[in-house]
Amino acid sequence: MLENKGRTELSELGEFGLIDHISKAFKLANKSSVKGIGDDAAVIDNGGKMTVVTTDMLVENVHFDLSYVPLKHLGYKAVTVNLSDIYAMNATPKQITVSIAISNRFSLEAVDEFYSGVALACAHYGVDVVGGDTSSSVHGFIISVTAIGEADKDELVYRNTAKETDLICVSGDLGAAFIGLQLLEREKKIFLENPAIQPDLGSNDYVLERQLKPEARKEIIEQLKKIGVKPTAMIDISDGLSSEVLHICTQSGVGATIYEDKLPIDQQTYDVAREFNLDPSVCALSGGEDYELLFTIKLADYEKVRASIDISLIGHITDKSEGINLITKGGGSTPIIAQGWDGLLKRG
Amino acid sequence: MLENKGRTELSELGEFGLIDHISKAFKLANKSSVKGIGDDAAVIDNGGKMTVVTTDMLVENVHFDLSYVPLKHLGYKAVTVNLSDIYAMNATPKQITVSIAISNRFSLEAVDEFYSGVALACAHYGVDVVGGDTSSSVHGFIISVTAIGEADKDELVYRNTAKETDLICVSGDLGAAFIGLQLLEREKKIFLENPAIQPDLGSNDYVLERQLKPEARKEIIEQLKKIGVKPTAMIDISDGLSSEVLHICTQSGVGATIYEDKLPIDQQTYDVAREFNLDPSVCALSGGEDYELLFTIKLADYEKVRASIDISLIGHITDKSEGINLITKGGGSTPIIAQGWDGLLKRG
Repeated sequence: MLENKGRTELSELGEFGLIDHISKAFKLANKSSVKGIGDDAAVIDNGGKMTVVTTDMLVENVHFDLSYVPLKHLGYKAVTVNLSDIYAMNATPKQITVSIAISNRFSLEAVDEFYSGVALACAHYGVDVVGGDTSSSVHGFIISVTAIGEADKDELVYRNTAKETDLICVSGDLGAAFIGLQLLEREKKIFLENPAIQPDLGSNDYVLERQLKPEARKEIIEQLKKIGVKPTAMIDISDGLSSEVLHICTQSGVGATIYEDKLPIDQQTYDVAREFNLDPSVCALSGGEDYELLFTIKLADYEKVRASIDISLIGHITDKSEGINLITKGGGSTPIIAQGWDGLLKRG
Repeated sequence: MLENKGRTELSELGEFGLIDHISKAFKLANKSSVKGIGDDAAVIDNGGKMTVVTTDMLVENVHFDLSYVPLKHLGYKAVTVNLSDIYAMNATPKQITVSIAISNRFSLEAVDEFYSGVALACAHYGVDVVGGDTSSSVHGFIISVTAIGEADKDELVYRNTAKETDLICVSGDLGAAFIGLQLLEREKKIFLENPAIQPDLGSNDYVLERQLKPEARKEIIEQLKKIGVKPTAMIDISDGLSSEVLHICTQSGVGATIYEDKLPIDQQTYDVAREFNLDPSVCALSGGEDYELLFTIKLADYEKVRASIDISLIGHITDKSEGINLITKGGGSTPIIAQGWDGLLKRG
């Protein structure tokens, strides 16, 4: 029945194309709906503090592979990736709901392992589990988490408010989670070809932890409040720096210049990338799953941020007409394009 | 790896057992978390109106069968089953998030069909889509909807506040959605055995629509407000009347008496049940997916409610020591037990 009509493959649109397509059908009508689809989270005004809501779905063998992801880590990550979206609104997460669908391949002990990771993340970030749903699945493990946060109205930071001459900052370092994934995938392949060989993950704890147990950058938000800097725009880095820079620029109607030599890359990320014949800068730009914060600040806030630990200045916002460009280490300028992991690996 | 530890099958606990088990691990810590797991929805206090949040996951071939459920109906139902939980808190739904995971078996046109049903439900109930997630799945179609509503603090109605002598009411009629499902399943079976035979769904529009396009009982909530009756406890009927009566009684620490001859059953439900050799009362008690509201009122509100269209008085709350019983048409008394569809069909 599905096949009888004119058929457009979803792959022709890609994920962002599909979201755009769907969004067009939905306009906001209620006064309390302050912000809908298109930012890290929705914003709802029920008369007190603003309520900030975001949701993510994780599907086995699409978003995670249980052959190397421990269930406890999965529970932890399912929470933190959602909290990251709340922090990216400059809000504080307070509640989550956790829904799971699981096949009978999983035991109660496996479910407990998963929820022990959820509980650990909740304790760490001061968040309550207030609801959810548990159901059967025919195949595999599916997780849907909704995170709810709060913020004063004037504290909220959106994606579409970056201005020309603003400085572009990023927290932590980039590309490590992607490199960790390459290591895990390589060892899985070797194991499948010859189960007698023991996995050799080397002493690459940092990149592995960045992939398996990402954190949401709570302390960056706290630090910015402490030094009295409110970002002019902000987004969390889930799909890769390039993709997120494009989101901020497109939605704000501005251009940007990013400097390759300013990209924060950990030494371990650099070394393992080289081992895989991957360009560390490309990993940082397109790797994704970093869950760092990308934000813009007013030029006047430069001195306050410059002294901050764990924040790098990587470029500045320009007029829209100048485009969105990367200044390479060699001094050349190349347009930044969004690139999924597929494209990245083809180039590697 | 999962199999190496002591293994407890999830089927040993059942869904409610699993929810209880998980809930025990999570205590509320934040002041804004007013109500957590255990009611139709969670309640959050951000200083203005209360924010009410509920979430449900629907999995292909567990919760729906696309061989007879049109995608537009599926979109509509995915929304209404969540709104039903918000109304069951005596709150007004205002926003939803919709996440889907779909395999490449589905086209853009199929996704559009699904979202056209979502949009129809949103327009009908005055709700905004404010977010969501779209991702790939390896197998099938998975939907996760979160609904968000608002209510004044003193308007909210919980499950655990029914009192002895309260009257027990139910909106609409019961068992029809279950009977509609039996019809659809029968025709599917016949079709699979012999695709040349055309489906014979007869003139059973009502029970089919109750299964395929359930509504949330917005107008019951509005009617109760209009006549000045605030229920003492309320729950929506998703798993069957018996199961929901048990939830209210257990959580309120009371007993109940329900009268079989007061159960509201539509004539079509009755007739088709008989055709299937099913007891219509058992269908009403255990069928589920009615999305009607079960609620208790003070004895003093009897006269106000008695004249209400589409509300039936089916029993009363007793002291806990009297248990939870059904008075049968023959005048006997039998304890009410929760019963899933499996048990129901075995008895049928």
